Amino acid sequence: MTTEHVNPEGMLKSPAFSQGIIIPANARLLMIGGQNGVDASGQVVAKDLAGQTAKAVDNLIKVLEASGGKLEDLVRLGIYVKGDSDIRPGFGAWMERWGQRENPPTITVLRVAGLGISPDVLVEIEAVAALR
Amino acid sequence: MTTEHVNPEGMLKSPAFSQGIIIPANARLLMIGGQNGVDASGQVVAKDLAGQTAKAVDNLIKVLEASGGKLEDLVRLGIYVKGDSDIRPGFGAWMERWGQRENPPTITVLRVAGLGISPDVLVEIEAVAALR
Amino acid sequence: MTTEHVNPEGMLKSPAFSQGIIIPANARLLMIGGQNGVDASGQVVAKDLAGQTAKAVDNLIKVLEASGGKLEDLVRLGIYVKGDSDIRPGFGAWMERWGQRENPPTITVLRVAGLGISPDVLVEIEAVAALR
Repeated sequence: MTTEHVNPEGMLKSPAFSQGIIIPANARLLMIGGQNGVDASGQVVAKDLAGQTAKAVDNLIKVLEASGGKLEDLVRLGIYVKGDSDIRPGFGAWMERWGQRENPPTITVLRVAGLGISPDVLVEIEAVAALR
Repeated sequence: MTTEHVNPEGMLKSPAFSQGIIIPANARLLMIGGQNGVDASGQVVAKDLAGQTAKAVDNLIKVLEASGGKLEDLVRLGIYVKGDSDIRPGFGAWMERWGQRENPPTITVLRVAGLGISPDVLVEIEAVAALR
Repeated sequence: MTTEHVNPEGMLKSPAFSQGIIIPANARLLMIGGQNGVDASGQVVAKDLAGQTAKAVDNLIKVLEASGGKLEDLVRLGIYVKGDSDIRPGFGAWMERWGQRENPPTITVLRVAGLGISPDVLVEIEAVAALR
């Protein structure tokens, strides 16, 4: 089974996201809950967005790989950032892990008032993957 | 294959959304990433919510149709609006495209602090469709 | 068919959520739209978060059960709370209904500027379930 990435003519093209992804009927789906930049004890590991995003993505990849999935199996990322700080350091932390692959996931990026209970949390990333 | 729309007795009924939709096991899913009111170069096309929503929906439909889907295949819309402006003009722009069909998608509507990088972006709409 | 809950070693463990859930290929999916603490006429039933959350969860369960699903079939909850009020009363209202089951859904919790049209709405909860 393979997913099909849809990027129609006449629409914005970006190395950061696909406009649409078709998931075949025989795929298993993996839901990954919102990941923060926290360690196994729940402590936030960094004060800045880049550091928290790096850890949140590492957590996300841990769940993905424990499920038998790979980065290219991701079909949706929901990226939620607190407040109006510059989001590019977070984007950089993600792209570093994504690397030079083609066919990125679809994404939704929201700036919100807060995430979870702690005011220190600056980013939360949830995902859906289509397992091969 | 057909989806089943679930609107239980004793719950709010609306022409704007379904309370639940069951997707059969043999459906292909289409994830559509968060669409803004931007053109192919990434420029925001309007200053107002109605204009941005119309373009965001047109972009969403472009991805849907490029995937072989139709409006009635949509099973979830996530509609995210910046700030506390009146959202009815955006709703009007959507209903104009949705038309007189029955069985609307499920929806989630959030008011957020911002969307993506540009402060000019007023609306983002993501979707899931179950392709026939 | 059964879902598989994924909680890797070295990650935060919580009775409130699973880190990941694998949905088998032959599952039917149920999308449940964003539920508020409103009655069948659309009136908000309480001024506080606990009361609104209790009603929103009851609405969510109504859609779930009308679709032939059970609480343990939930694979994702999106929980969106207005402003920076204490979210623990809402969490309590959810846990009361969830009870002592194992294998909770994945969750994403966002604090947002508002929900839908009415400024009185304090919480919205959407869900995905994998029907057996």
